Amino acid sequence: MKTFRLLVSLEEALQLIYGRINQVEKVEEVELDDAVGRVSAENVKAPFDVPFFDRSAMDGYCVRAEDVYGASQFNPVRLRVVDTIGVDEEPRRPVGAGECIQVATGSIIPEGGDAVVMYEHTERVDGEVLVYRPVYPGENISKKGSDIPRGREIIKAGDYLNASKIGVLAALGIARVRVYEKPRILIIPTGSELAKVGGDKSALQIYDINTHTLAAVVKENGGIPVLHEIVPDDEKEVEKALEKGVESSLIVITGGSSVGARDIIYDVLSRRGEVLFHGVQVKPGKPTVGAVFENRVVLAMPGHPTSCLSNAYLFLRPVLRRVARLPEAGLRTVRARLARRVVSTLGRRFFLTVRLRNGEAEPVFKESSAITSMAEADGYIVIPENADTVEKGDWVEVHLFQ
Amino acid sequence: MKTFRLLVSLEEALQLIYGRINQVEKVEEVELDDAVGRVSAENVKAPFDVPFFDRSAMDGYCVRAEDVYGASQFNPVRLRVVDTIGVDEEPRRPVGAGECIQVATGSIIPEGGDAVVMYEHTERVDGEVLVYRPVYPGENISKKGSDIPRGREIIKAGDYLNASKIGVLAALGIARVRVYEKPRILIIPTGSELAKVGGDKSALQIYDINTHTLAAVVKENGGIPVLHEIVPDDEKEVEKALEKGVESSLIVITGGSSVGARDIIYDVLSRRGEVLFHGVQVKPGKPTVGAVFENRVVLAMPGHPTSCLSNAYLFLRPVLRRVARLPEAGLRTVRARLARRVVSTLGRRFFLTVRLRNGEAEPVFKESSAITSMAEADGYIVIPENADTVEKGDWVEVHLFQ
Repeated sequence: MKTFRLLVSLEEALQLIYGRINQVEKVEEVELDDAVGRVSAENVKAPFDVPFFDRSAMDGYCVRAEDVYGASQFNPVRLRVVDTIGVDEEPRRPVGAGECIQVATGSIIPEGGDAVVMYEHTERVDGEVLVYRPVYPGENISKKGSDIPRGREIIKAGDYLNASKIGVLAALGIARVRVYEKPRILIIPTGSELAKVGGDKSALQIYDINTHTLAAVVKENGGIPVLHEIVPDDEKEVEKALEKGVESSLIVITGGSSVGARDIIYDVLSRRGEVLFHGVQVKPGKPTVGAVFENRVVLAMPGHPTSCLSNAYLFLRPVLRRVARLPEAGLRTVRARLARRVVSTLGRRFFLTVRLRNGEAEPVFKESSAITSMAEADGYIVIPENADTVEKGDWVEVHLFQ
Repeated sequence: MKTFRLLVSLEEALQLIYGRINQVEKVEEVELDDAVGRVSAENVKAPFDVPFFDRSAMDGYCVRAEDVYGASQFNPVRLRVVDTIGVDEEPRRPVGAGECIQVATGSIIPEGGDAVVMYEHTERVDGEVLVYRPVYPGENISKKGSDIPRGREIIKAGDYLNASKIGVLAALGIARVRVYEKPRILIIPTGSELAKVGGDKSALQIYDINTHTLAAVVKENGGIPVLHEIVPDDEKEVEKALEKGVESSLIVITGGSSVGARDIIYDVLSRRGEVLFHGVQVKPGKPTVGAVFENRVVLAMPGHPTSCLSNAYLFLRPVLRRVARLPEAGLRTVRARLARRVVSTLGRRFFLTVRLRNGEAEPVFKESSAITSMAEADGYIVIPENADTVEKGDWVEVHLFQ
């Protein structure tokens, strides 16, 4: 009988994997609007000053600030309106003493003017304007290059392209972006009892769940799932499947990762590759193997659907995000009171699936093989290694699957 | 001169909009692996019991529990191993008194057996096995239908399909799912000074940023952005653009939403539609119009890129998620200490962009028109209406854009 060697902690397991991953290197060019959620593969310098000229930041009147220093609600300063500049017009004349020029947000600041008084602080009376508030020089003017000076490196390789960064690229007129390719993750389901979803199954078979939960987690975390056919519990077949992983950044195997007679994954991986760890101090999900096969990290997950899904969040998600160069990101969390007492296992960190009902976290974990544990769960809570019970009413932090 | 009518709070603005939105009704069928992140449009009942038969939850030996009640570490019970059942085999014979049958996780429980002893608690000696621990009847057996009884409604219309729910559908062999279509959001950029990203621009033009930041937020929140060409500041042109929105669930306009001479959006919307509010007590983003045009909600955002992006998170995101039937979801948050004192504006809720450096939240807001405010920001903090300053070192909650 095989046994687990020394169990490692979740953190140790992740560090062992991180030491051996290959981050994506290949680059592709995509349309700007397809770049959201991707990672820039290039440094981008501003090709011009932003703003491109001294521009008005407000709708109002461009003035010489010193002309209106004395303006107040009861003693407005009176200025002559000598022109109006639209946002798509060049100034036709400068602002002289006692004069002002009507401008819109985005208008070029005409010569002589050094501040803009907002409409709201003025009153138009025929060809003149009453200014009710002073402005300081530079007020409501965006100076040329003040936002982004030409040549400034505004996006760096490795930057995550969220909506803001997309906006910055748009401001610079950049319509296509070079980003890192999404890593391909080979998913290998093993188990002679498995039937392919969508096909028929015999009375003895069960449908292959894990391929699809793993594919979902891969898609949600910036990877491309590559689905292998179901592999029977046969070492040669598993080896053949692994060899198809050479095009992938990461290989995930489900099933056969424990220490029973049918648990052949450890044997295959230790014979053909290098095992980094076998067994992790987490519950569910203990029988997890981390290995390297032909320079590729292999994560072998237990076949129990709940354990596999839990592992997908605990191991695959952070590893994949690092491979994809995506920022580390925990799941969203909410605080809730535990709806009933939970007994844990000392020495293993317990990831307990819960659903949220009326602000309470209600455990839904049945057993590792029960799919309703996942179906009804909104997320999970973590019970540390050194806690054996958590009491009803205790505050817990729920990590949301959603 | 136009003025803002009474400003509404963010909550009031959202409630006014929620009262008038149309949630997506159209349904499409997608492959299971494409259904992650979508919303089920159907109730799904389990077509069969899960498990489909009484199955072993462990690798081990199927026994009559009463035979091993007295087993202990020092007084093992000895049982005869009369058969071995693989996961893809029917039982060939029952378990008799003093007998056991070797089973694997997932094996059918043979008649006569009512518990499974894990391998770890046994020792094989030739044709016999020593059992070192008692089991209670039912231990390590998953009863037929105990996980999901046949006919149980396991997915409901409106359920968000995360990885867990995908797993449940897989367990039931369901390969295609009916989900709600993604809503189409028409984005109309207005402003005579705008140039299309990817094309040339004159010295007087600026690139259209908002179309792309809005498209990014739409994509990240389950919508399909439909991009309208840039519309000049002309009421007739804006009307024509709005009329193209009849295929969309929601229309977003950027630019011209304030009260200046060029701010024509309010006029068009009040003449051709129904204005729900004009002006919201938020900073940036005050000049926002909520309206209804031909039974469609229209959100008109200010043209300043930072204001527009802030509005995209505050208004568009929750509204779009509701239209798409997606669960409400705030941005992820982290707590940090404020790196320097911030002065706010009483009476307006201030959404201040910050970056995270060494665990501190450092304000990066320059002015609404500055795109570096967005470029460098990791997220924003909220300063309430009744706060005029937040001190350096105060704890703040940062809502992450990522």
